[in-house]
Amino acid sequence: MGTDRPDLGLYPPGRLELAAAAARDAGLAALLLTPGPDLRYLTGYDAHQLERLTCLAVPAAPGGGAPFLVVPRLELPAAQASPAGGLGLEIIPWEETDDPYALVAARLGLAGGRVGLSDRMWALMVLGLRDALPGTGQALASTALRELRVSKTPAEIAALRAAGEAIDRVHARVPGWLRAGRTERQVAADIADAIIEEGHSRVDFTIVGSGPNAASPHHEVSDRKLGRGDAVVVDIGGTMPSGYCSDCTRTYVIGTPPPEFAAYYRVLQDAQQAACAAVRPGVSAEAVDAAAREPITAAGYGDYFVHRTGHGIGLECHEDPYIVSGNAEPLRPGMAFSIEPGIYPGPHGARIEDIVVCTEQGCERLNQASRELVCVDDR
Amino acid sequence: MGTDRPDLGLYPPGRLELAAAAARDAGLAALLLTPGPDLRYLTGYDAHQLERLTCLAVPAAPGGGAPFLVVPRLELPAAQASPAGGLGLEIIPWEETDDPYALVAARLGLAGGRVGLSDRMWALMVLGLRDALPGTGQALASTALRELRVSKTPAEIAALRAAGEAIDRVHARVPGWLRAGRTERQVAADIADAIIEEGHSRVDFTIVGSGPNAASPHHEVSDRKLGRGDAVVVDIGGTMPSGYCSDCTRTYVIGTPPPEFAAYYRVLQDAQQAACAAVRPGVSAEAVDAAAREPITAAGYGDYFVHRTGHGIGLECHEDPYIVSGNAEPLRPGMAFSIEPGIYPGPHGARIEDIVVCTEQGCERLNQASRELVCVDDR
Repeated sequence: MGTDRPDLGLYPPGRLELAAAAARDAGLAALLLTPGPDLRYLTGYDAHQLERLTCLAVPAAPGGGAPFLVVPRLELPAAQASPAGGLGLEIIPWEETDDPYALVAARLGLAGGRVGLSDRMWALMVLGLRDALPGTGQALASTALRELRVSKTPAEIAALRAAGEAIDRVHARVPGWLRAGRTERQVAADIADAIIEEGHSRVDFTIVGSGPNAASPHHEVSDRKLGRGDAVVVDIGGTMPSGYCSDCTRTYVIGTPPPEFAAYYRVLQDAQQAACAAVRPGVSAEAVDAAAREPITAAGYGDYFVHRTGHGIGLECHEDPYIVSGNAEPLRPGMAFSIEPGIYPGPHGARIEDIVVCTEQGCERLNQASRELVCVDDR
Repeated sequence: MGTDRPDLGLYPPGRLELAAAAARDAGLAALLLTPGPDLRYLTGYDAHQLERLTCLAVPAAPGGGAPFLVVPRLELPAAQASPAGGLGLEIIPWEETDDPYALVAARLGLAGGRVGLSDRMWALMVLGLRDALPGTGQALASTALRELRVSKTPAEIAALRAAGEAIDRVHARVPGWLRAGRTERQVAADIADAIIEEGHSRVDFTIVGSGPNAASPHHEVSDRKLGRGDAVVVDIGGTMPSGYCSDCTRTYVIGTPPPEFAAYYRVLQDAQQAACAAVRPGVSAEAVDAAAREPITAAGYGDYFVHRTGHGIGLECHEDPYIVSGNAEPLRPGMAFSIEPGIYPGPHGARIEDIVVCTEQGCERLNQASRELVCVDDR
């Protein structure tokens, strides 16, 4: 629980003050954050989501007082040992028979206004806080925090780069595990071990979609045996000790690719490259999506690209900004997201995914694993 | 995602109708359930919690219509392949640029009343549904579903028994990994592998607290090296392919126990046995907590038993009923929960935990690993 994690400059001083100011600008009287990425972003405290309330309160109104962290008594040592223990933040333990919601409400002392709740707070706590703060409205904390979190600091980009390098090392080992007769589940188990061995602290997903399963973008894993001539979509990721995530997809072929596959794989490479080339400050998220879609549609595969082009990444594997039609938000330097077009005509399919960062100059890819078609020699 | 999991009779027909009736009795117009244990309990669909809305709607009012499941288009194959696909439930996919909250609201067609939300629904969805259903109040679905979920069916108890047997097999292997000079983290990695090898599909926690860390009930794991004379609290659990959880704690000693340890370990054994002996229908949850506390207090260690005696377990590792002072709820046959007193005087400590089921006759323990003091020979 964050007791022996490297600091890496990920929690610069003053972030709580920035959050309070952002909340004030968003018209919020306070932020109320339960365990999850918002709490970790502001304090470095990597707390478990439990039925027992842990809640960081950040008053935003002038004179609203200092931030405080309410934790179950049992979690006090972990909270104190985390980076949150070094912030000069008051940490208030509650006992097993206390009402922690009443404790938060009494300490906050709000007279109306709206509070911003962490997006992943459980309904159990949302309604508990609603009832404990009857004169107070509720909004999402992301209305205030997204502007901070969406533009990564150099330390955060370094953490994402390290995550990208770690998952690249896993992909470099994948061809050795792809053999006809092995099941998707066996390959996924090898990958899960490697995700840890290469430096992650947690395996988040190990998608191995072979043959017809490669045509189902959210297939995970099954007992299907790999066969010669299969395309295999391998979409994998984990969380590093820093808390930052990796996510990278490559599509491999065992032996000789199925008919038509090589042709649309080339289109997919072009589309992924075109989307990366479109990334620069001021370009909208949806324009990047369109840049990926255009060559695929032009080649006649438009109906087979059935998902958005990408999602932001950081302390969450999926976060703002989403690279999707309808999102007109202009890209800014420091935004990090996936570029992952796919073509799934069935009975096979392919996807190529890199994490990229928008820089002043354009686009930095954080994944360097080859995007060329890798045909695994299975003899 | 539930495509190749055994059925085991865990999802009997008629459960959706029972849920609708329970919601009606609780004064709810509908249940709205996002991915998590409530959704799995009602449909068998083991869906991921994602930022894209997946929501089961169960209208409760007479004439309110049939239940329906709204899923992102990408998740449609997984939803159809899950047990939910065999329920005759309408599954409605939404496209990347649709507003799924508006879709749920339009289909529900409620004119007021209150909806019950799954306890772990993210605030993102709680407030999204609040805004899409402006004339409708929000409560927790557990007000309706807890009565169903808290009394386990024979199939659920069989699933918990299988989970208990699996974690017992892991504990049987633990002494072989406890050697002076190895770190807690190394031992935890061995345990994590064994949790999977012994039949779980997911590792939920691997707490290894040695020496002074054994005195911190929620310590997880560190790079501390085990030493001769250490007590080591090993609290481990995982989730089985059925979705049901294991959770079992044993305290081991490497070599000769520290002074006083053997004396209070005996008290702890008596306390854990006393609490199990107190379990029978009609006895309150808090009376079981008191039964564990009494011998510990009588022996002068009361101040060192700093947490509740237990928590319910099922599709969640922590769920109702909580075995804690202040919970006067009478136990009923089919309730499953942990009995896990601890004594933490420092600079060492101990905890013993079993999962038990309240039966007509009293108490069935689902963990059989020895509760005698195991002193690992480290020569």
